[in-house]
Amino acid sequence: MVTGMEKPYVVGMDIGGTNTVFGIVDSRGNVLATDSVKTQSYTKIEDYVEAVSEKLIPLIKSVGGVSKIKGLGVGAPNGNYYSGTIEFAPNLPWKGIIPLAAMFEEKIGVPTALTNDANAAAIGEMTYGAARGMKDFIMITLGTGVGSGIVVNGQLVYGHDGFAGELGHVIVHRGGRLCGCGRKGCLETYCSATGVARTAREFLVARPEPSLLREISAEDITSKDVFDAAVKGDKLAQDIFEFTGTILGESIADFIAFSSPEAVVLFGGLAKSGDYIMKPIQKAIDDNILKIFSGKTKLLISELKDADAAVLGASALGWEVKE
Amino acid sequence: MVTGMEKPYVVGMDIGGTNTVFGIVDSRGNVLATDSVKTQSYTKIEDYVEAVSEKLIPLIKSVGGVSKIKGLGVGAPNGNYYSGTIEFAPNLPWKGIIPLAAMFEEKIGVPTALTNDANAAAIGEMTYGAARGMKDFIMITLGTGVGSGIVVNGQLVYGHDGFAGELGHVIVHRGGRLCGCGRKGCLETYCSATGVARTAREFLVARPEPSLLREISAEDITSKDVFDAAVKGDKLAQDIFEFTGTILGESIADFIAFSSPEAVVLFGGLAKSGDYIMKPIQKAIDDNILKIFSGKTKLLISELKDADAAVLGASALGWEVKE
Repeated sequence: MVTGMEKPYVVGMDIGGTNTVFGIVDSRGNVLATDSVKTQSYTKIEDYVEAVSEKLIPLIKSVGGVSKIKGLGVGAPNGNYYSGTIEFAPNLPWKGIIPLAAMFEEKIGVPTALTNDANAAAIGEMTYGAARGMKDFIMITLGTGVGSGIVVNGQLVYGHDGFAGELGHVIVHRGGRLCGCGRKGCLETYCSATGVARTAREFLVARPEPSLLREISAEDITSKDVFDAAVKGDKLAQDIFEFTGTILGESIADFIAFSSPEAVVLFGGLAKSGDYIMKPIQKAIDDNILKIFSGKTKLLISELKDADAAVLGASALGWEVKE
Repeated sequence: MVTGMEKPYVVGMDIGGTNTVFGIVDSRGNVLATDSVKTQSYTKIEDYVEAVSEKLIPLIKSVGGVSKIKGLGVGAPNGNYYSGTIEFAPNLPWKGIIPLAAMFEEKIGVPTALTNDANAAAIGEMTYGAARGMKDFIMITLGTGVGSGIVVNGQLVYGHDGFAGELGHVIVHRGGRLCGCGRKGCLETYCSATGVARTAREFLVARPEPSLLREISAEDITSKDVFDAAVKGDKLAQDIFEFTGTILGESIADFIAFSSPEAVVLFGGLAKSGDYIMKPIQKAIDDNILKIFSGKTKLLISELKDADAAVLGASALGWEVKE
C-alpha cells in the first residue's frame, strides 16, 4: 500500500446488478463515507454516471476534494482491466462495450481503474485482509455465483484479454448441472449459494429421510435455510454442506496444481458456514492434492468486513492507478 | 533476450532419468556444442557433478572460457527454481533434497538457475520459439508424462514453493485411471504417450472391429504405433487420437479459464501427430470454452527443434540468472 499523505484517500465503487455502492477509503482500509444508487434505474449509461457523480462528488468534497484522492477503483461484472470497459455484462442494463473508467475519469477528474468484482476482492484481500504480504494466492468468492481472483508474483492475473480467473466456470462434472453460462457442470452450479439450494432440492427428492428443510417449499429454499437446519443438527442439511465442500475442495486441489498458492481465501456467505463447509473442503483438498503440494497451501476465510468488502476491494485498485 | 556481447553464450543442461544432455547456446538459439552423460551411472551426486563438469568445462573453453558465459540453466524433474534444488525426484538416482545449482555454480564458476523441465521448455519457447513476444501462454509437454509451464505477465509461474504448473496432474476423470502419482484420473494418464498406449489396449479389448494394432502384442503398443496405424487409415487408431485429443481439449478449455493465455503451445511427440490429434483438441476447446474466451486463445505447436529442445529450453534460463 503506497500513498503519500498529500493524496491520502481512494474511492471504491462496486457495481452490482441491483445496487452501486461507493465510498471513500483511507490507507488503513477505513471506509469513511459511502453512498449508493440503484443500478437498474438508469438504462442510459450517461444518466447512470451522472447520478453516481451527483452523490460521489459531495463525498469527495467532504474529505478535501479531488486533490486528496489517489484514484478511483471500480469492481464490475465483466470488467476489463486493460481497457477500463465493461463488456457484455448480462446483469447490467447497458449493452455492448461501455468505456466506464474513461467516463468516470472525465466526470470526476480522478484516475480510474476497473476490473471484475472478484479480482477487486482479491486486491482488497491483499491490501487490507487475510492475504496481506502474500505474493501468490487465490481468492474464491462464493455468492450467487462463484468468482475468483488469482494473484501470481504479487500481481493480479488478468490474462492476455483482461478477463482471466473464471474458476467458477471450470467444469467439475462433465455433463452435469446446466449453468447460466450455457454449459454444463461448472463449479458455480454446485458451490454457489444457488448451487447449495439446488443440491437441497435434489437431496430432498432423492432421499426419504425427514429433514427440517421439508417444512420449506422446495423452490424457496436458500443456502441460509440449509445452514440454519445444519446448525439445528439436521443430518440432510449437513450432508448438503459436505457434498458442496467436497466438490469445492476437489476443485481447489486442482487449482493448487496450477499456481501453487500460499493460500486459498474464501469470501462470501457460504464461507461463513463454519465447520459444516470448511471441514469437508479441507478434507477433500487433503485427499486429492498432488503429494508435492500436500499441506503447503493455507485455506483461509476472508478478513474483509462484510458490509464494506465490496467498496474496500474496489478501492484497493485505486491505489494502483497510473496518474 | 538480453545479452551483452561480452557474455554471448549460455549453457543449457537437461537432466533426464536416463541421460543428461548439455550444450553451449548463443543468443539466437543456435546450439554450438553438446555432450552428455548417463544420469543413472552416478549414484553419488558428487560423482555426477564431477562427471558432467569434466565434459562441460572443455565445451566452455572451446567458446572462450567462463568469462563468455552469462549463466547456466538447468531443467530437471522436481527442480525448485527458488532454492536451486532437486527435491525427491522419483526417477533420479539421488534421494532427498539436492542443492544442484549451488554445486554447479561452485564447480563451473557460472551463475546457475534451475527449474523443472516443462518450465524450462516454456522459457525456451518464449525466448526462441512459438511464444516469442508473448506475455501470457501455457506450454504443455506431451511425453512419457504430461508437464506444463505457465507464463503470466511475462513471468514463469513458480508459485509460493517453486513447483507450480503441474497441469498433468489435474484430475480429468475422478476415479479414473491410476496415475504414477498414486491418485486416479490425472490428465497424464490419458494424454501422455503412455496414456495413448493405455487407451489403445482398452479400445482393443472393448471393441470387436479389426485393426492394424491387433498385429502388435498389446503390452508392446506405443503411441508411435497408433500414429502409424492412423496414417494408414485405421479407424480404431484414429478414434484413439480423437479420444485423447478430446480430453486434452476439454482440459485446455478449463486452463484457459484460469489464466486466459494468448496461446497454448503443445510440445512433444504427440503434438506432432498432426490433424489426428490437433483437430479433436481444437474442437473440444471450441465446444467447451466459456463464451468470454471463445476464439481468443491460439493452439500452437512448439517451434523448438526436437534434438535441441531440451538443451535450448534449459539454456534460456541461463539468460535470466542473477550475477
